[in-house]
Amino acid sequence: MAMDAAEVDHLAAERASAQFDVEEMKVAWAGSRHAVEVADRMARLVASDPVFRKDNRTMLSRKDLFKDTLRKAAHAWKRIVELRLTEEEANLLRLYVDQPGYVDLHWGMFVPAIKGQGTEEQQQKWLPLAYKFQIIGCYAQTELGHGSNVQGLETTATFDPKTDEFVIHSPTLTSSKWWPGGLGKASTHAVVYARLITEGKDYGIHGFIVQLRSLEDHSPLPGVTLGDIGGKFGSGAYNSMDNGVLRFDHMRIPRDQMLMRLSQVTREGKYVHSDVPKQLLYGTMVFVRQSIVADASKALSRAVCISVRYSAIRKQFGSQVGGPETQVLNYKTQQSRLFPLLASAYAFRFVGDWLKWLYTDVTQKLEAKDFSTLQEVHACTAGLKAVTTSATADAIEECRKLCGGHGYLNSSGLPELFAVYVPACTYEGDNVVLLLQVARILMKTVSQLTSGKQPVGTMAYMGNIQHLLQSKCSVSTAEDWLNPAIIQEAFEARALRMAVNCAQNISQAPNQEDGFFERSPDLLEAAVAHIQLIIVTKFIEKLQQDIPGHGVKAQLQNLCNVYALYILHKHLGDFLATGCITPKQGALANEMLGKLYALVRPNAVALVDAFNYTDHYLASALGRYDGNVYPALYEEAWKDPLNETVVPEGYHEYLRPLLKQQLKLSRL
Amino acid sequence: MAMDAAEVDHLAAERASAQFDVEEMKVAWAGSRHAVEVADRMARLVASDPVFRKDNRTMLSRKDLFKDTLRKAAHAWKRIVELRLTEEEANLLRLYVDQPGYVDLHWGMFVPAIKGQGTEEQQQKWLPLAYKFQIIGCYAQTELGHGSNVQGLETTATFDPKTDEFVIHSPTLTSSKWWPGGLGKASTHAVVYARLITEGKDYGIHGFIVQLRSLEDHSPLPGVTLGDIGGKFGSGAYNSMDNGVLRFDHMRIPRDQMLMRLSQVTREGKYVHSDVPKQLLYGTMVFVRQSIVADASKALSRAVCISVRYSAIRKQFGSQVGGPETQVLNYKTQQSRLFPLLASAYAFRFVGDWLKWLYTDVTQKLEAKDFSTLQEVHACTAGLKAVTTSATADAIEECRKLCGGHGYLNSSGLPELFAVYVPACTYEGDNVVLLLQVARILMKTVSQLTSGKQPVGTMAYMGNIQHLLQSKCSVSTAEDWLNPAIIQEAFEARALRMAVNCAQNISQAPNQEDGFFERSPDLLEAAVAHIQLIIVTKFIEKLQQDIPGHGVKAQLQNLCNVYALYILHKHLGDFLATGCITPKQGALANEMLGKLYALVRPNAVALVDAFNYTDHYLASALGRYDGNVYPALYEEAWKDPLNETVVPEGYHEYLRPLLKQQLKLSRL
Repeated sequence: MAMDAAEVDHLAAERASAQFDVEEMKVAWAGSRHAVEVADRMARLVASDPVFRKDNRTMLSRKDLFKDTLRKAAHAWKRIVELRLTEEEANLLRLYVDQPGYVDLHWGMFVPAIKGQGTEEQQQKWLPLAYKFQIIGCYAQTELGHGSNVQGLETTATFDPKTDEFVIHSPTLTSSKWWPGGLGKASTHAVVYARLITEGKDYGIHGFIVQLRSLEDHSPLPGVTLGDIGGKFGSGAYNSMDNGVLRFDHMRIPRDQMLMRLSQVTREGKYVHSDVPKQLLYGTMVFVRQSIVADASKALSRAVCISVRYSAIRKQFGSQVGGPETQVLNYKTQQSRLFPLLASAYAFRFVGDWLKWLYTDVTQKLEAKDFSTLQEVHACTAGLKAVTTSATADAIEECRKLCGGHGYLNSSGLPELFAVYVPACTYEGDNVVLLLQVARILMKTVSQLTSGKQPVGTMAYMGNIQHLLQSKCSVSTAEDWLNPAIIQEAFEARALRMAVNCAQNISQAPNQEDGFFERSPDLLEAAVAHIQLIIVTKFIEKLQQDIPGHGVKAQLQNLCNVYALYILHKHLGDFLATGCITPKQGALANEMLGKLYALVRPNAVALVDAFNYTDHYLASALGRYDGNVYPALYEEAWKDPLNETVVPEGYHEYLRPLLKQQLKLSRL
Repeated sequence: MAMDAAEVDHLAAERASAQFDVEEMKVAWAGSRHAVEVADRMARLVASDPVFRKDNRTMLSRKDLFKDTLRKAAHAWKRIVELRLTEEEANLLRLYVDQPGYVDLHWGMFVPAIKGQGTEEQQQKWLPLAYKFQIIGCYAQTELGHGSNVQGLETTATFDPKTDEFVIHSPTLTSSKWWPGGLGKASTHAVVYARLITEGKDYGIHGFIVQLRSLEDHSPLPGVTLGDIGGKFGSGAYNSMDNGVLRFDHMRIPRDQMLMRLSQVTREGKYVHSDVPKQLLYGTMVFVRQSIVADASKALSRAVCISVRYSAIRKQFGSQVGGPETQVLNYKTQQSRLFPLLASAYAFRFVGDWLKWLYTDVTQKLEAKDFSTLQEVHACTAGLKAVTTSATADAIEECRKLCGGHGYLNSSGLPELFAVYVPACTYEGDNVVLLLQVARILMKTVSQLTSGKQPVGTMAYMGNIQHLLQSKCSVSTAEDWLNPAIIQEAFEARALRMAVNCAQNISQAPNQEDGFFERSPDLLEAAVAHIQLIIVTKFIEKLQQDIPGHGVKAQLQNLCNVYALYILHKHLGDFLATGCITPKQGALANEMLGKLYALVRPNAVALVDAFNYTDHYLASALGRYDGNVYPALYEEAWKDPLNETVVPEGYHEYLRPLLKQQLKLSRL
């Protein structure tokens, strides 16, 4: 769907109305000129390669889709090797191939697990094999009956000193490993998490490198049962991945395949801790979560790009009787649903950039054995993961609805985008479980305020408790809401007061734990308020930096204000109930929001162009760069297998007898 | 997945804890003892017939799925005829077959269109053919470029007095008929909507009966291009339906195939109106919308049933370290997300029952040529369609997330339920468009209040404006929120004040139309508030009736309170901003909500049992009646085509060369 020179740009007028430099906005979005260039180059490399076509993906059977994934993965690796791509380039190439598969887990979980939890010796043995794909690895943690609660896992790894081996076993049906990506069909190895038992004692969950399949013929090794766990949400989508099931029947592995960086089992079966602090593993978790936040902004921006472009093409009703129909994007109801999502895409992008910095910062601190900020960092990364993924999942579906009926067609690209994205709300920590962890840290921080312990980082504002419990919002006109200091204080006051309210309610319970349990729905809301404050704050801080390019900063300013005031309007009950703002001030915020939408309107298409997505990556008849939507939808329709014949299969058996009143004679 | 006598009921303890008579609740849910009996009988008839199996549906290719739909439709018709089923029984049988297909449009749109818009003569000609399936009909209204705005349709029907025919034509690509169900492959006829042109004048949109395919060999007739519009959201789901595309190239039909009940074209080409008032058609729209609201409660209750049962089986974390894990249903966060949806299912069911009554009432009034309530009825049916379908779509996805990772598997039944349901937010009137229609009537009603015109029916409360603008909520304890009069007044005050605020803001605009346009996001919120009031009111009114059975009314009372206070908490900003309640009263409502969840908890499983759904209809490993979830998930997994071979297809081409470092030699 690339644009030929001869074709018409149906969105040209929209692009001409932009009040900023789109090329410079691309830099602001991508992070640097280099980032724009390399992403662009890799996106085009993928888009121009017929092996990477995606337009038929939702029509493939599960088997053909999986085979297609194997093909793409091998071809991508071949290209990476042939072109001697850098790690950055290779990662981008995989991103634009845009099809979940075993390589995601191999690079994203298996290799990092060995790096993080393996000894030097183990790393030297296993990493070169993994780096060259002489083995394919996955990460086998969750079980059929056990998800978020790692401590509840049932798989056992019992040390047998007679043979110097661990015996890996699945004692129950519910202890079957279940969900690991790449496990079902592709992986030769896994990092398996199991209860370590030695000398008759259970030492809890540890990781083990386990070979699952023969390196000669790929058949499962004795002692393991392996399979795929079946179809998942949507067509195409995550069905390209072989999420797997794995049962062990007393399978034996050498002792040195336990990941031993933090603790070891000796030849005699003694369990000993190393002097490596457990906290060092924390860096990996921050890294994974920052990449999930970055992915949220990517998925959201794709959906917004499709929906904004199509809303500029699609016309419905006229502002006056008999007049031409109006672009849907001109409707205030469309703007009030779509522009906050556009603003959210930018907001999540910038908070993701900041998380990248935080990862570097935490890594340095961990290396210096400074663990003082870990708790605050945990609250912030866990919470941002939860809030951005939940908001993104909802937003993709909202973007789909904003495309009207056509958004329901696979050719719009939105059903697959939604179906492939939603697991982000569950994996790497269920969002509700994570928000309760944030709430627990918030409650701890509140309780320590009286003892004079100053909170740090994203929690520093809580130290300002005296002021924030008393402060009154000074807004008296709609324009006052454009003042970032006013926005920030309103969000700080809301978050702090909600946390303090929770703490007070909990303190009235017979004991802290019961109080926390009873008040957990309120705690979720307090945690969300704290995280939304962080997102708003990081957007505001971004705008305090130098941002080059004509009009770029002004546009981002509008989007920052849209995001903040949209959240304020959506959670108006929080702000009013805590007395942070008055009803009148809430109405002024809403009024300002309407004015901001009018400012965004002429820039909307250019603001999604700045994401710089190819038509291949978007894979949407509605989101085409050239806006030539209707011929594209029409052409896509005829590709459906149902259109291979004019008269459908089944006519003679099931339609003709019905129409000819001969059903009783027919075999059904 | 039916339960054998020998099997264990894993939910027995849950069922034993119920504090009410489940059999009597089934009657309250279904509407009568007769309704329970006939639904149960039809559900079992379908569940026991192997032709109607659904467990493999998400694994079928599009062609096989469509063929399966043709087979089920023919078999269902055969059973209906053989068993001489009543219309009620036949409708229920089709409901439990639970697979979208051409018959839905044939009975639901084609036949009613002829009944409503055809003359006596036309009905006598066409209806017997349709009743016996000698023809299959669909309803061809929407076009590729035209959805909600019927007046924007481009297809033309030009009268040719020379031959006494209409020439049906698609002048542009965007005028292609697009979306009609049953059009793509199955239908032989359609009611086609087109601009009627005669004597050179465009008389706007009218309906025409058009034959599309040969009754001998099903091939498209000359002058039409027909096809399926391609894959849609999800696996299985709506892909069983042949939503179609249709282009006309000057196709000719006899003049008497224009539906002529309301207006005719004479032999000479004169356009004349009959004396049948247009309003008579309105009954059909009320009927269709009441059935959509009834469907919302069905879809929502299915999702809630699955999620409640699995939440009672699934265990995560312990309340104390080392203790057994806790049933997820015991967590307050789970209850606060799930129980409001359980309450919503009942709320939508009862408002749907009331809409059935309203349909009868409107029909009687229309027959007596009393059109005085039409506007209020329109606001109420359009709004209830919008609010219940949007809430249900969101709720199904929430139920899926509440099942954790396993909800993402097709074997949970929830992905398909979501994908098949969401179009309800768009078809039969996009929800935003409908809510704006509600808002328009609200604004008109407000403007007429000063003139002394008393609003009627669901808008009668607005006549109480003096009181509702002044009233203060009298709640001073959490228990005060159990008083239905207090709840009702708070909802009335909120809805009225939001409407009045909008009216005031609009009146400040240069003209009414601009004001309405600018304030449309606020108007949507006011419309939602009005409709939520109707739902709460009808639930409260239901509880004023006699409801037999031990504990049944008490449970429904709890659910009514949960629904109302959940909406109040969710929209707290509305209630506070309009000064209907104080922040303290809002906190008390939230406190009461927590207490109500504790009351619902021991009854939750029995409350979903009362829906009386078979395992066949639920089609969910997680929602099984016997709660034996994990073996079911495990068994379902092995049915996936990917598990047909241990070593996957593609291994030799794409995995082995990678692992053996021979990629460069391989053909990819």
